[in-house]
Amino acid sequence: MRAAVMYGAGDVRVEERPDPRIEKPTDAVVRTVASCVCGSDLWPYRSMPADGTGRPMGHEFLGVVEETGADVPGLKPGDLVVAPFTYSDGTCDYCAKGLHFSCRNGGRYGFDGVDGGQGEAVRVPYAAGTLVRLPVSADTALLPSLLALSDVMTTGHHGAVTAGVGRGDTVLVVGDGAVGLCAVIAARRLGAERVVLAGHHEGRTALGREFGASDVVAERGEEGIARIRELTGGVDKVIEAVGTRQALDTALGAVLDGGTVSRLGVPQYEQGPFGRAEFLRNITLTGGAAPARAYIGQLLPDVLDGTIDPGRVFDRCFTLGQVPDAYRAMADRRVLKALIRP
Amino acid sequence: MRAAVMYGAGDVRVEERPDPRIEKPTDAVVRTVASCVCGSDLWPYRSMPADGTGRPMGHEFLGVVEETGADVPGLKPGDLVVAPFTYSDGTCDYCAKGLHFSCRNGGRYGFDGVDGGQGEAVRVPYAAGTLVRLPVSADTALLPSLLALSDVMTTGHHGAVTAGVGRGDTVLVVGDGAVGLCAVIAARRLGAERVVLAGHHEGRTALGREFGASDVVAERGEEGIARIRELTGGVDKVIEAVGTRQALDTALGAVLDGGTVSRLGVPQYEQGPFGRAEFLRNITLTGGAAPARAYIGQLLPDVLDGTIDPGRVFDRCFTLGQVPDAYRAMADRRVLKALIRP
Repeated sequence: MRAAVMYGAGDVRVEERPDPRIEKPTDAVVRTVASCVCGSDLWPYRSMPADGTGRPMGHEFLGVVEETGADVPGLKPGDLVVAPFTYSDGTCDYCAKGLHFSCRNGGRYGFDGVDGGQGEAVRVPYAAGTLVRLPVSADTALLPSLLALSDVMTTGHHGAVTAGVGRGDTVLVVGDGAVGLCAVIAARRLGAERVVLAGHHEGRTALGREFGASDVVAERGEEGIARIRELTGGVDKVIEAVGTRQALDTALGAVLDGGTVSRLGVPQYEQGPFGRAEFLRNITLTGGAAPARAYIGQLLPDVLDGTIDPGRVFDRCFTLGQVPDAYRAMADRRVLKALIRP
Repeated sequence: MRAAVMYGAGDVRVEERPDPRIEKPTDAVVRTVASCVCGSDLWPYRSMPADGTGRPMGHEFLGVVEETGADVPGLKPGDLVVAPFTYSDGTCDYCAKGLHFSCRNGGRYGFDGVDGGQGEAVRVPYAAGTLVRLPVSADTALLPSLLALSDVMTTGHHGAVTAGVGRGDTVLVVGDGAVGLCAVIAARRLGAERVVLAGHHEGRTALGREFGASDVVAERGEEGIARIRELTGGVDKVIEAVGTRQALDTALGAVLDGGTVSRLGVPQYEQGPFGRAEFLRNITLTGGAAPARAYIGQLLPDVLDGTIDPGRVFDRCFTLGQVPDAYRAMADRRVLKALIRP
């Protein structure tokens, strides 16, 4: 089969790889119908050292089950399924708590001999605990929004859930990438009355407004914080969907004492400013890597009936052969989120 | 009047100071019946630069109202009152939310012309929003436990509340100081089934067991983490009642993915380890400076009927003239918490 492999910063190639096959009874092989490039794929795209060994890329995909192992209850060949961005056994203590990202037997696509999602097919470990069957056919117009459940929409939802968003709240979302925009959807879905979106890419913030953002703050740094405070008087709940220290500082600057900052962007720092000042302000820091598997079932009905339409974050479609272009276009911010059709 | 003043590390003096008097209509003057030395007073006692200007000390006290300004509804001379460890107006948005520590007009005893608690009397700003009247007389045997509501017991309670402790929980309390011991009481009071206390001072951990700790872990660092994990398999809720990086590292090492660490000890670090690793583990960091005023009313009935007895943390009584000895005794860990009778 053909699949995308990253060999180092800026070096993504589409090449022949072994066809996936069932290796364990809990495996399924999924023929990919659609996948995408994640904002987090851009970190290695900018910084991965070239060492000659490639890493299969992609962790968001949707496809048709081609074959199942002997121990994959609930799934059969022909089922359309969406994959959460990590696999999980569905049975350990963490999965039982809905914390599938921490699954005792879980793992990441593209590592440990598991295929990436940016290819023609994927062997999915613990398929019964991982994949979610979709009650539609592969030619559905809902496909982009269903694919968004793989990561960006479930991640945005995780931010709103962990920030404790509820009816009537004012919420700040920092970041106008796909996750930030989905966090706007999620905050509104959970009842937020006002959502302030901090972002400076006009096309993206415009989509944010369509998703329900009441205000957009394009200023950055201290100026951005001042503007948010002027608009809101400070907010109790912030969803930080970037991962940089600047985004975190904006969140901490805009949040009121006693408020909550939920982090969705993978932190690009190891030490954070959580000393005496944040202690005295009673700031809660929460969020993290979303347990996408736990949320897909909750969000699926709203996607199926059109209540939410997160697939609008995909603003350009690429073929598998064009995946290197998709990375470049996203890295250059010419594309918000690239959908890939193998 | 006589009051304790700190002039630098190791230099606490009891000296004559002006008698407090009503300066604003919202003031009250309280004649101190009992006060104490806080673990947090030991930080300046170890490190305060000597600059010739003294700082009145003490922020935990209980006393009798001597005089009130024209605008102090609900209080009259002769009332026995307990003071939360900061003063607050009781009317601002933060006070309305129960976040009195962040009061827009609040402040700390011993700063900005306000007396400290370790003296014969205190002018209390915003007395109506600050002081809580006690329905007992000054000779009550409950006095130490009522005094504990000023800080250590309400702070311990803040840890249990913000960690989300509930019925059946297993909770780790890091630190066997007075706040840690009160956190044990608080966790049990909110329904924790098992409380593991990490501390290595035998007399203190013995009291912790009497307060309801099921297990004591005396080992520190990696060894302590291993022991806690061996005992519990890891915990979902941790109350960190020390403030050092080692205590925080113990908390982070013992907490399960998806768990919560509530900080009660004033952090002696500015940057914390809250990068990628903690993000991927979905750790929530919460807690902070307790809104003692918000909790006194909730805890008072349990003190009055003897359900909780946090006053047992006071293991030695000093006169006002002996305050310098009290600091030394606490700094040398010969005394857990010093009660002062002016």
